[in-house]
Amino acid sequence: MTFGIIKYMFSFEIQATDGEARTGKLVTPHGVIETPSFVAVGTQGIVRAVCAEDLEATGVQAIIANAYHLHLQPGEELIDEMGGLYRFMGWEGPLMTDSGGFQIFSLGAAKEHGVGKIASIFPEVSDLGGHFNSKKKDRLVEIDEDGATFISYLDGSRHRFTPEGVVALQNKLGADIMLILDECTSPLHDYAYTRRAMGRTHRWARKALDAHQRHSEKAQALFGIVQGGAYQDLRETSALFMAQQDFDGYAVGGSLGKSKDDMHRVLEWTVPLLPHGRPRHLLGIGKMEDIFEVVMRGIDLFDCIAPTRMAETGTVFSREADRYAMHLLNARYREDSSPIEAGCGCVACRRYSRAFLRHLFAVGEPSAIRLAAVHNFCFLESMMKEIRQAIKEGRIEALKKEWSVPQW
Amino acid sequence: MTFGIIKYMFSFEIQATDGEARTGKLVTPHGVIETPSFVAVGTQGIVRAVCAEDLEATGVQAIIANAYHLHLQPGEELIDEMGGLYRFMGWEGPLMTDSGGFQIFSLGAAKEHGVGKIASIFPEVSDLGGHFNSKKKDRLVEIDEDGATFISYLDGSRHRFTPEGVVALQNKLGADIMLILDECTSPLHDYAYTRRAMGRTHRWARKALDAHQRHSEKAQALFGIVQGGAYQDLRETSALFMAQQDFDGYAVGGSLGKSKDDMHRVLEWTVPLLPHGRPRHLLGIGKMEDIFEVVMRGIDLFDCIAPTRMAETGTVFSREADRYAMHLLNARYREDSSPIEAGCGCVACRRYSRAFLRHLFAVGEPSAIRLAAVHNFCFLESMMKEIRQAIKEGRIEALKKEWSVPQW
Repeated sequence: MTFGIIKYMFSFEIQATDGEARTGKLVTPHGVIETPSFVAVGTQGIVRAVCAEDLEATGVQAIIANAYHLHLQPGEELIDEMGGLYRFMGWEGPLMTDSGGFQIFSLGAAKEHGVGKIASIFPEVSDLGGHFNSKKKDRLVEIDEDGATFISYLDGSRHRFTPEGVVALQNKLGADIMLILDECTSPLHDYAYTRRAMGRTHRWARKALDAHQRHSEKAQALFGIVQGGAYQDLRETSALFMAQQDFDGYAVGGSLGKSKDDMHRVLEWTVPLLPHGRPRHLLGIGKMEDIFEVVMRGIDLFDCIAPTRMAETGTVFSREADRYAMHLLNARYREDSSPIEAGCGCVACRRYSRAFLRHLFAVGEPSAIRLAAVHNFCFLESMMKEIRQAIKEGRIEALKKEWSVPQW
Repeated sequence: MTFGIIKYMFSFEIQATDGEARTGKLVTPHGVIETPSFVAVGTQGIVRAVCAEDLEATGVQAIIANAYHLHLQPGEELIDEMGGLYRFMGWEGPLMTDSGGFQIFSLGAAKEHGVGKIASIFPEVSDLGGHFNSKKKDRLVEIDEDGATFISYLDGSRHRFTPEGVVALQNKLGADIMLILDECTSPLHDYAYTRRAMGRTHRWARKALDAHQRHSEKAQALFGIVQGGAYQDLRETSALFMAQQDFDGYAVGGSLGKSKDDMHRVLEWTVPLLPHGRPRHLLGIGKMEDIFEVVMRGIDLFDCIAPTRMAETGTVFSREADRYAMHLLNARYREDSSPIEAGCGCVACRRYSRAFLRHLFAVGEPSAIRLAAVHNFCFLESMMKEIRQAIKEGRIEALKKEWSVPQW
């Protein structure tokens, strides 16, 4: 069905279901995403170490960039002048922009609670010791009813994000799919705070939707975000609230609890309450062991930095490896003249042996990361193709067993 | 004419000369190098940040890898087991291996004299402070009549290079063109030492040639290296000595003095004494301002890390820039939606603006270096094409004036 605010250039057709899992086509102005689909993380307008043409060759269908990072550097005004994010970054396929809610959370509560992904996402923050520290009075972010004020990790400048402002920011960027500004909570926030934050996210959601309906001129879709932490009644309330708003799609965000089981429960509480005919995105999740779990709970899109992050440490996916992961620096690959995975058509497997790739990691050659990341994306795309086919054939359970991805 | 020891798979045909400059075809078992030609530096078996297929797309004709580095890591035995350097590194075109003479020099005299490229070539050495320092008693290399003994910068292990051993090492690597082990001297070495070292290099040259004639089984060529520092009589003696040996080609190496003028004089003393019909390689030289100078003094091949080293600092070549060099981090490129150079067909220029590339450098994205390096190679290849054409047309002087490359 076509849907929502932008009816003419977006549509989502579910072609088959298998339990909660669905497969379909999400049509955007810049192309079709066959779902369920992995979305590559291109925070700064590029996937780390992997250019747009590399990514096209892997079969990756969509990228998610980050409005917060692009706002700080190089700034949405510049990107707008350059013809928008599409022209700027040279990517021609479907593109999403995350709102920055998670990044603001990382500067605030996650830092105070010592949780979240701050160390990995903001390596720079840990260098700010001289200017800011994690004492409450020096916090980098203040959240109020109307938005969030935060300090740039780059230069200490002050910035203000509001729900309306973040839609306007994303209008300038011009991605196919935008996300609303939300307030993320940490697993250490109590019920009362999580509930208050959720209420604020809901009020922000209305403001964002209103701004979008009035001001978005380009063909862009806007996704709501379900919050509520790991509390069942809050998650259900949030999912029902968001479902009542005419968003083009729905993301599940914020704290997903402290374990994989918690995360699975959050999906089981929320996904069934979301409109069946709209796409559902799980934010920041997608390690290999998560993929079957989230797809089989009704998720259509998910993003995760795992393919590049693993590549940076010399880890590549392979059906030929124990637990599907091969750490190339391991001595066992020293004299291994095989490609990472026989039959893989990626640039790394077509031309280079595990031994050579190991050598590149050993000598600190930057191409090592690119080759490993390109392979990892190819691998995931091939896995996702199998998953989509299995859903069409009603055999997703069987495929999951065949893969038997370890929970590590 | 075909030539030298390996007559059946190597030939060098000079198609035109213009003053001392020559243009021709150097045929090797892995393809033809149109000369004069830039040779890309692939020390570790890969050109920094640029994969083999990237390099092919730029038109780069040949790579020079380094026997010293590959001996230390991953070792010639491993590469031999993997089917040789060609299969290992996935490069299918003409390939040279440098002998490691310069690297041994860098560990010894260059370090003691505080000269040479040690800081840039061996960043690791400066980290060895705890184990080794630059006091003479702790020197990392000892040269004797039969070879050089040195300590690995990686693990402190001892290694021995002899003229015959380095041929055997390069036989295992299997590049089309090998270089003899030489003893490089520094500009601070006096006449007497430079003369002694030259004599040793000459004796080593005979041993290397002898080993090559007896033991090289693959179709590999061996180039001699002219030494003699910046002393005219030594350079002439060395060139005449090398010319009398039946090398397949000749390199000019060692100290080229303290200035560009010194380097030009060294070429003027030596190149006319080398056999006209054999290729001549200038080792480690090839910044843009050097190219016309060395080609017009009769050099056919040269190698230099400039294209990648400049790329690492955000500097790209462009006919549209002052002095042909554009520092992308400069604020003037912030809003510049043009490609680095209009009409350039490289992956960077086809798809990305200067503003986007600047952004990639600003955020520390590894793809920035790859894109800039690929462009720089494309640029140099296009310059070299112009140079070859101009030699054919007898207008190299005029082309040099058109380019008017600044001496910076």
